[in-house]
Amino acid sequence: MKPSHIEHIGIAVASLEKAISFYEGVLGLKCYKIEEVADQKVRTAFLLVGETKIELLESTDPEGPIGKFIEKRGEGIHHIAFAVEKIEAHLAHAESEGVKLIDSVPRKGAEGLDIAFLHPKSASGVLIEFCEDKK
Amino acid sequence: MKPSHIEHIGIAVASLEKAISFYEGVLGLKCYKIEEVADQKVRTAFLLVGETKIELLESTDPEGPIGKFIEKRGEGIHHIAFAVEKIEAHLAHAESEGVKLIDSVPRKGAEGLDIAFLHPKSASGVLIEFCEDKK
Repeated sequence: MKPSHIEHIGIAVASLEKAISFYEGVLGLKCYKIEEVADQKVRTAFLLVGETKIELLESTDPEGPIGKFIEKRGEGIHHIAFAVEKIEAHLAHAESEGVKLIDSVPRKGAEGLDIAFLHPKSASGVLIEFCEDKK
Repeated sequence: MKPSHIEHIGIAVASLEKAISFYEGVLGLKCYKIEEVADQKVRTAFLLVGETKIELLESTDPEGPIGKFIEKRGEGIHHIAFAVEKIEAHLAHAESEGVKLIDSVPRKGAEGLDIAFLHPKSASGVLIEFCEDKK
């Protein structure tokens, strides 16, 4: 039981338009979708590179998780998401290994995926997300 | 001209052994190599997930780049590396787009790759590396 690949890398940005301009103009990637995730208080833009998405995250509310992240640490990489099958089994295994979970039960994230976060204190300061496409 | 995939994600950790234990024991990945990169003052451990490597970075010197990063920000994601062909052309293009380069000429990195970094101020706070396998 292990992740198949990096599903996406989440990057907290102050301006979605400015960041898209960098990833398109400098790196040559293509933004294929912009989506608002209301309960996370973000607007997200997606670009694909190989099998991994770059997920740019712009806060729609200073009190949301991305707004607070940027206030505290500035713009930058926010999390890494691993694509898994049987997300519940991965969460149960992580918990059995002593990992603190942010989400003990998966919830719906961007693009309709089932997602859950592990606490960065259990993972060398990295906010890790599991995500599964059950469609 | 665009990167083919995420070559690796660099993660600054306080203890290589503890971090390897997490990525192997919790995520089920396998560390296939540990390498010291003397000029970067780090010991690195590599694990593969899909087409991307997780590169764990432990400082061997508090004055090295990873030692300073951890002192300032704590453990966490340090950089994203994009696999490219013709790294010099990518650097020239980035510079022509107004991006500040840390390395205007590629140098040798871990695993014998040609690597170069862009300045995070030009990329929404993200330290971006280009790398090319010319072997």
